[in-house]
Amino acid sequence: MTAPALRDRASKYTAISMKEAEEIMKTIGTKMTKQFETVAVDLSLLGKVVAQVVKSSENMPPTRVSTKDGYAVIANDGKSTKTVIGVSLAGSVFDGVLQAGQCVRISTGGVVPEGATAVVMVEHTICSKLAEGDEEDEIELLEHVSDGTNIREPGSEVRQGDIIVRAGSKIGSAELGILNAFGIKEVHVFKKPSVTIISTGNELVAPSTEHVPMGMVRDSNGPQLVALFKEYGFDVIDGGRVSDDFECIKDKLSECLESSDVIVTTGGVSMGEKDNLKEVLKKLGMEIQFGRVMMKPGLPCTVATGRVKNGGEIEPSLKTVLALPGNPASAWVCSHLFALPLLRKLSGYQRTHHTQIKVRLAETIRLGDRPEYVRAYLEDLEDEDFPIAHVTGNQISSNIGSLVGAQVLLVLPMKQDNDVVRKNELVKAMLL
Amino acid sequence: MTAPALRDRASKYTAISMKEAEEIMKTIGTKMTKQFETVAVDLSLLGKVVAQVVKSSENMPPTRVSTKDGYAVIANDGKSTKTVIGVSLAGSVFDGVLQAGQCVRISTGGVVPEGATAVVMVEHTICSKLAEGDEEDEIELLEHVSDGTNIREPGSEVRQGDIIVRAGSKIGSAELGILNAFGIKEVHVFKKPSVTIISTGNELVAPSTEHVPMGMVRDSNGPQLVALFKEYGFDVIDGGRVSDDFECIKDKLSECLESSDVIVTTGGVSMGEKDNLKEVLKKLGMEIQFGRVMMKPGLPCTVATGRVKNGGEIEPSLKTVLALPGNPASAWVCSHLFALPLLRKLSGYQRTHHTQIKVRLAETIRLGDRPEYVRAYLEDLEDEDFPIAHVTGNQISSNIGSLVGAQVLLVLPMKQDNDVVRKNELVKAMLL
Repeated sequence: MTAPALRDRASKYTAISMKEAEEIMKTIGTKMTKQFETVAVDLSLLGKVVAQVVKSSENMPPTRVSTKDGYAVIANDGKSTKTVIGVSLAGSVFDGVLQAGQCVRISTGGVVPEGATAVVMVEHTICSKLAEGDEEDEIELLEHVSDGTNIREPGSEVRQGDIIVRAGSKIGSAELGILNAFGIKEVHVFKKPSVTIISTGNELVAPSTEHVPMGMVRDSNGPQLVALFKEYGFDVIDGGRVSDDFECIKDKLSECLESSDVIVTTGGVSMGEKDNLKEVLKKLGMEIQFGRVMMKPGLPCTVATGRVKNGGEIEPSLKTVLALPGNPASAWVCSHLFALPLLRKLSGYQRTHHTQIKVRLAETIRLGDRPEYVRAYLEDLEDEDFPIAHVTGNQISSNIGSLVGAQVLLVLPMKQDNDVVRKNELVKAMLL
Repeated sequence: MTAPALRDRASKYTAISMKEAEEIMKTIGTKMTKQFETVAVDLSLLGKVVAQVVKSSENMPPTRVSTKDGYAVIANDGKSTKTVIGVSLAGSVFDGVLQAGQCVRISTGGVVPEGATAVVMVEHTICSKLAEGDEEDEIELLEHVSDGTNIREPGSEVRQGDIIVRAGSKIGSAELGILNAFGIKEVHVFKKPSVTIISTGNELVAPSTEHVPMGMVRDSNGPQLVALFKEYGFDVIDGGRVSDDFECIKDKLSECLESSDVIVTTGGVSMGEKDNLKEVLKKLGMEIQFGRVMMKPGLPCTVATGRVKNGGEIEPSLKTVLALPGNPASAWVCSHLFALPLLRKLSGYQRTHHTQIKVRLAETIRLGDRPEYVRAYLEDLEDEDFPIAHVTGNQISSNIGSLVGAQVLLVLPMKQDNDVVRKNELVKAMLL
C-alpha cells in the first residue's frame, strides 16, 4: 500500500464518455462465454431466452374446427331449412357424415363434421321445429353462408414443422402458453450468468444493527442490489461485506471469481486511501477496462475483466468485475446502465438496455458538467403526446431517498451552450 | 340447463364500452376489502405497497461527514499550510479537536473532527513536508475553501422523525435500500389478494398430454395466466381444469370462493350450449357486473361479484370472478386490462394500469367494429420522438402465437370516419 504522502493526488484514470463505456461493455458481453441448459416447460422458464428454435410437431388446429357457436351445414345444398342430426361440442365429436338438408349443432372449438362446409352462427338461425324434450328438430337459416365460413382449417394457424418460438425469444407468459398448447416438454435456453454482490468498506455494519457506532453505517448497497437484480429476473448471490483491507478484498474477490461469471462490488473505487479496489483487480491479473466515466452519479465506476480458472474447467473463462461507487444512488444507477445490460447480454437477450422514450419535463433542470441520469416519475398520458416527468426529490448521490418511486431515468446531456433544460422541453428517458 | 331449442339465440348481455367496464372494475376494486400484514424487511417485501408511512428514528448522516477525500481544516484560520495530525476514515474516527493550522486527512464518509469547518479535496492540495515512513507531515492548500464546504451536516439528508418511505409506495430495490440504511426491521403493507385460476371446458386435457384425442385441446390458458400474474408479482393458485358441467363448475367455484378473493376463469362465457359460466355465477348468488365488452379480442368477457363467507369470517366479504373467454389471446388481453388492475388496486398500488405512451405505427392497420388491443413490439428510439411499433403477426384471438414477443398493446379505436390507422400515425400503447 502506497504511503499517503506519495499517493496520486488526482485520478490516473481518464473519465471516458458514456458512449465509450457502453461500447466497452458491449464488447465484454460479446467476448464472455454464454452457457446453455435444457429446462422443463414450467414457471422456472420465465425470463429465460430460447437458444434453439422450437418447432411444432403438430398441425394447429389438428382438425377442422368451428370458430363460432352455431350449426355446421353444407353451404350450397340449396336448403335454408335443416334437420338437426346431432351435436359437436368442444370435447365431444359428432361421428356421422352430413347430408344435404342436415346440420349439426356445433360450439366454438368443436370439430366440424365430415360433409359440412360452413358454420352458421346461432344468431343467424331460428328453431323452426321442436322434437321431444324440447330438443331441436329443424332450424331455419336467416342468412346465407359461403363455403369455409367460420371454419378453421387444419394447420391454418400453425403447420407441423413451423417455428412456434424463435431463437432469441424471451420466455414470458405468452410464450409459456404457446409451449404448453403444443405439448412441448423442455426448451434449450441460455443459462443465466452467476453473479455475486459484495459490499466493501471498513465502515459497514449489518443492516440489522440497532445502534450504529460513530463513523459506521449500515450496508444498504448489498440488499439494494440483490433486490434490483431480482426485480429484473436475476437471482444473485449475496456475497456480504468485506473490509477495505487490500488482502481481505483480494481473497474475497479471488474466491468469488472462481464460482461467479460476474461480480458487482460497491465502494473502494474513489481516491480515498482505503480505495483499494482498482489495485486489487490489477493484482489479480485483471485488466481495468475503464476506471472513470463521465456520468453523474457514478463517476468512479470501474470495470475490469480477466480470465480466471473455474473449479472444474480446463480453459479459464473471461470474468467481469463491476466495481461500482459506494454511494447507494451511484451504485443503483450504474447497475442499471452497466450491470443489467451485461447480464441480459449473457442471458441471450436481444434487447439488453431499458426501452427509451421521450418525456416532457414538468420543471426546469440545471445541467451539470457531466451527463446526468435523473430519477423521475411520470404523469398519466391522458391526451398528451408525451408523458410529463417529475424529478423525484434531491438527486445528491448519497441521498438514496431520491431513488424512491422512480419510474424512469431521465437522460440529461452535460451543459454546453445551455446550462438548463427548461420546463416543457423533451428529453430521453429510460423506462425502469 | 335450458334445452337447446329454447336457448337465447342472441346474447342477453349488452356489450358495454371499455370505459364503462373500467369504471365498474374501479368501483369493484374500491369496494373490495383490502388486507394488511406486517412483513420483515427482506426480498419478500419486493412489489408490496406500504400501508403506513415509515419514519426515521435517526438523523442521516448521524454526525458531520465528509463528502470528499481530502483534509478536514479550519477554513478561516488564515493558514494555507497545515500540519497533518491524524486521519479520519470511513469506519475509523479521529478523536481529537482540530486547532488552527492543523488538519486531519479524511475520506469520503469519514466523520469530520471537532473543530474542523470544511474539507479540502485532495486534488486541491500538495504534500509539502514528509514525516518518517513517507507519512505526511504538512500539506499546502492550493485553493481556499469556505466554511461548510464538502461537509454533510447531521440530519441534512433525513432528520429523525422524517418520512423515509411514504404510504402508497411500492417497495422496489431503492425502497428496500433505504429501509436497510435506516435499520428498519419490518413494514406494514397491503397484503396481496389471493387469486385462483381455473380453466373450464370438456375439451381440455393436461398440457403434458402426448397424443391429444380428436376434438380435445391442451389447456394452455391455465399455465399462461399463472405465468402472467407471476410476471407482475402475483403468486396465484393454479386451480386446474374443470369440465363444462353446470354442477362441476358450481362446486369448483364455490370451493375456490371460500379461499380466494379473486377467481379468474377461462372459457364458458360465449353463446355455446356448454357456456354455463354466467348461469353458474347467478346460481351462486353473484351479480353479473358485465357480460360483454365492446373490445377485441375479449367480447364475451364477464365479471361478477358477490359476498361469500370465508371459512373463519363472520361477515361475508366481497369476492370477484373474472370469467374470461377461452381463446388464449382473449384471456391474456383481458387479464392485462381487467384482472391485473384489480389485483394491483387490492394490493394498494396507486397506479393500477400499465403506463401508456404514444407510438408511431410501422404499418397501416385496418380498424374493426370494436376498439382493438393489438400486440406489438417497438424499435429502439434512436433520434425519433416516438418509438416505432410493429404488430406481432396474426391477431386472430385463437392464435396465441400473436402474443409472442409483444412489448406493448396498441390501443386502437373502432372504425368510424376512418376504417384504417395509417403507417406513421401516432396511437396510444400500453407498456407491458
